[in-house]
Amino acid sequence: MRATASDKFVKGNDRTGTARGGGPAVILVQPQLGENIGTAARAMLNCGLTELRLVKPRDGWPNDRAIAAASGADAVVEAARVFGSTAEAVTDLHRVYAASARPRDMIQRVLTPRSAAMEMRARDAAGERIGVLFGREKAGLNNDDMALADCVIEARLNPAYRSLNLAQAVLLVAYEWYEAGQTGTTGTRVTQGAGGPASKADLMGLFGHLERELDRCGFLRVAEKRPSMVRNIRNIFQRAGLMKQEVRTLRGIITCLSTRQHRGNEDR
Amino acid sequence: MRATASDKFVKGNDRTGTARGGGPAVILVQPQLGENIGTAARAMLNCGLTELRLVKPRDGWPNDRAIAAASGADAVVEAARVFGSTAEAVTDLHRVYAASARPRDMIQRVLTPRSAAMEMRARDAAGERIGVLFGREKAGLNNDDMALADCVIEARLNPAYRSLNLAQAVLLVAYEWYEAGQTGTTGTRVTQGAGGPASKADLMGLFGHLERELDRCGFLRVAEKRPSMVRNIRNIFQRAGLMKQEVRTLRGIITCLSTRQHRGNEDR
Repeated sequence: MRATASDKFVKGNDRTGTARGGGPAVILVQPQLGENIGTAARAMLNCGLTELRLVKPRDGWPNDRAIAAASGADAVVEAARVFGSTAEAVTDLHRVYAASARPRDMIQRVLTPRSAAMEMRARDAAGERIGVLFGREKAGLNNDDMALADCVIEARLNPAYRSLNLAQAVLLVAYEWYEAGQTGTTGTRVTQGAGGPASKADLMGLFGHLERELDRCGFLRVAEKRPSMVRNIRNIFQRAGLMKQEVRTLRGIITCLSTRQHRGNEDR
Repeated sequence: MRATASDKFVKGNDRTGTARGGGPAVILVQPQLGENIGTAARAMLNCGLTELRLVKPRDGWPNDRAIAAASGADAVVEAARVFGSTAEAVTDLHRVYAASARPRDMIQRVLTPRSAAMEMRARDAAGERIGVLFGREKAGLNNDDMALADCVIEARLNPAYRSLNLAQAVLLVAYEWYEAGQTGTTGTRVTQGAGGPASKADLMGLFGHLERELDRCGFLRVAEKRPSMVRNIRNIFQRAGLMKQEVRTLRGIITCLSTRQHRGNEDR
């Protein structure tokens, strides 16, 4: 895709200041133990990451045990931002990875921490904002969280004992991120232009639009199937790594198809 | 490293049965907290390592807190052997690495966890017995411990915040050990199922269907723009790496949107 006229507008607006190179945000979804939040912050700072986001921490926020466990990384804990839902925690991001220990019945790209790190480095250098989701201590990420992600990070571990402590999962991802920055360039490049990558807010707009129309035309009429159908459809578009301009195109298609005038002389 | 003259002696004696391929022993020198011993055992088992040795654990042995923290890796904790000194803990080993967070005033070879892992794999495959020393929580390894090691493993971390929790240091070394044993895979895959990947024929069917409907609703009405618009739309779906089942879903969506009955009571 080539740059378009809309690029200037975009550069002047929502991409201002996004070429931060600060690395991915770590997003802990409903973390249960303050100790784990603190230890995760420590693992982050060990690897040069500082942006911590929390989705509904179980024991509220701020949390003294998190500060205590952070030993020296308390600045990361203190600067953490709290969100009411996973969706809200990712709206400003262009690319979201989900750290997961177990295989899902969903069609998503699965990367090791190492290959994810190389990809994240390239995207970060191109000015994209990135985040990695980590799930609850016991249950991990649920399928709705997973549907917000572009792809999955899954460490290769002993198949007989895969369960990683939360902070250790954060460490593996953060460590590979740091390592990937130690070894020159990655040889990967992210295509530019087309208004830049779509943000999660752009995608949410697209999904809302599509699902509204699918509700209207009856595609999602079976209530118990609706959540999984919606997730599957979202996955398709998440995986495409859409540009802003492509989101506009898809929304144009949806509008056009769904408002089409049925002309009598057309045979189907 | 090549075989040396001492190899024969070694083979005939203490190397009997040592071609275990079980990977390095993890040796915790004077660990203070039972929790850390348990979490270290967990990190070991995550990465397929099972041989734990303890040098004078501060709170004695066995330790209930270690068992509790091991959650599922208790067999590793229960099989741990306790030694009275670091020297005793390494006598049967051929090669000892010292995990260290801080530079020493000693002349030793320093490896990253990754390069150490590759070296350890080669040595392990050759039947050598290997161990990695990890120091006390507060003070790390002292110079006498270090002098028992052949070389040093030092992770590259944020120079401003290098302090790693004991179990996290164990995880990095064990993880790299495990990764180094994973050969021939790219680190990326797409989850399977969903009828397998769509063929090009499936995609062509989808594109034909979509473009026919877009012609009908007028989306592609500007003739000179049509070829590039079609290409751009096709690119979106090509990039998604669709499964057969997803192609069916998308075709269902197109049919549903384009045959929708316009009901009077719907406002847009």
